[in-house]
Amino acid sequence: MCQLLGMNSRLPASVGFSLEGFVRRGGETDHHADGWGIAFIEQGACRVYTDSAPSIQSPLVDTVRRHAHKARNIIAHVRKATRGEVAPENCHPFTRVLWGRAWVFAHNGTLEHYTPPAGGPYVPLGQTDSEAAFCQLLQQLREAFGCRPPSLRALQAKLRRLSGDIARHGAFNYLLSDGQHLFAHCSTDLCAVRRQPPFGQAALVDCDAVIDLAHHNRPDDCMTLVATRPLTANEDWDLFSPGELRLFVEGRPWDNRSVC
Amino acid sequence: MCQLLGMNSRLPASVGFSLEGFVRRGGETDHHADGWGIAFIEQGACRVYTDSAPSIQSPLVDTVRRHAHKARNIIAHVRKATRGEVAPENCHPFTRVLWGRAWVFAHNGTLEHYTPPAGGPYVPLGQTDSEAAFCQLLQQLREAFGCRPPSLRALQAKLRRLSGDIARHGAFNYLLSDGQHLFAHCSTDLCAVRRQPPFGQAALVDCDAVIDLAHHNRPDDCMTLVATRPLTANEDWDLFSPGELRLFVEGRPWDNRSVC
Repeated sequence: MCQLLGMNSRLPASVGFSLEGFVRRGGETDHHADGWGIAFIEQGACRVYTDSAPSIQSPLVDTVRRHAHKARNIIAHVRKATRGEVAPENCHPFTRVLWGRAWVFAHNGTLEHYTPPAGGPYVPLGQTDSEAAFCQLLQQLREAFGCRPPSLRALQAKLRRLSGDIARHGAFNYLLSDGQHLFAHCSTDLCAVRRQPPFGQAALVDCDAVIDLAHHNRPDDCMTLVATRPLTANEDWDLFSPGELRLFVEGRPWDNRSVC
Repeated sequence: MCQLLGMNSRLPASVGFSLEGFVRRGGETDHHADGWGIAFIEQGACRVYTDSAPSIQSPLVDTVRRHAHKARNIIAHVRKATRGEVAPENCHPFTRVLWGRAWVFAHNGTLEHYTPPAGGPYVPLGQTDSEAAFCQLLQQLREAFGCRPPSLRALQAKLRRLSGDIARHGAFNYLLSDGQHLFAHCSTDLCAVRRQPPFGQAALVDCDAVIDLAHHNRPDDCMTLVATRPLTANEDWDLFSPGELRLFVEGRPWDNRSVC
């Protein structure tokens, strides 16, 4: 099993504070010490940093700290290997191109007896069930909708069905983003918190750190964080239900009554 | 125009010394100051770091220095923008998956009146002629050979023809690797040097630095460096001919009489 952290924001934002707590789960406050990775995703491009060292020891953490990249979508993952050895090619997040956009995916859970059909352009590089599931999702989306993206409503409905099919093989908690949208699917463990004005203070669970969000955010900022387990002690994290697929756009849940 | 640096090595090796000179071409000893990137490529996985800041100012250079990643294949690029704005999505190297391997590509040159046909799974994310050409190469390789890689001889012959077609549009100097092989195509500027026992000293052109290669390499090391212009003053760099496509495997030119 692994742990996930995702962010969807109206304006490009940093995830530095939350990451400080999250990376401690990679060997310090939790046992997810088989690699880690983080992706900063915009519509045009994404930057992915991965390391097969435990995040608590990884020099990449310091790099990410010092660069303080901002993005509208960020996905991070600390790994506890269950399928596939501890190796660079098995570190999440994974990335592929579909509909002219870079898609990024990270998974928490283990899929049993899961052998998706081979063939097609989306082929895993590593040995994880997670990357295989990501490739199968993209393959099936491309088969369903061709070379152009469908409406957001049709995409969400299709992803929900496909994710339910894969979740029959085991826990399939995942985060998926194309730089504009963040999809979050829960089988067993996922929760979310929205940060918007008026911003308060946030206190991390995994280390002794408090931040004044009002000091670090502007009045027009709005963002949602999604994680396997709550990262802060004093915010109201909303638990997902099993089988739920949520979609976040511009920092908040997408209202599927909107026209997109 | 831009500048290229590539390495193909029998054993995983660092390119740190050569990189010290190369990154100075991104704003100090030369004017390629519109971004830079480096990819460390193995058969199973690749790590790509890019930054749209000039390499001479980029904090990523320090990261790469401190990590001292080793790989059998490394491709680096400093950019002087001619097609596509200065932006993360337009930084080389680019990467895509073909035949279950990550392929990495960087280009020096400008293609005029080049509009490859759209469609198929290999779609550019940015606006460069370079990424469009990379996508077209992979698309055509997949159309020619299907889901499985051909023999190395057939691949080299096909790449030579495809590269010649694209080079009709302008300078098409490129480096391409799948983690095992390094292909280097020259239209106008490319040169290579082989380092193998007995190792001597190397003195950089772009800064005052000398290294004793015997001290940093083992007796069984063998590697070839490829660059737009020679990086060292005292080594025997071999200039490519226009239209030449060379293939390096295990640190040396591939002998196409071998069976692969």
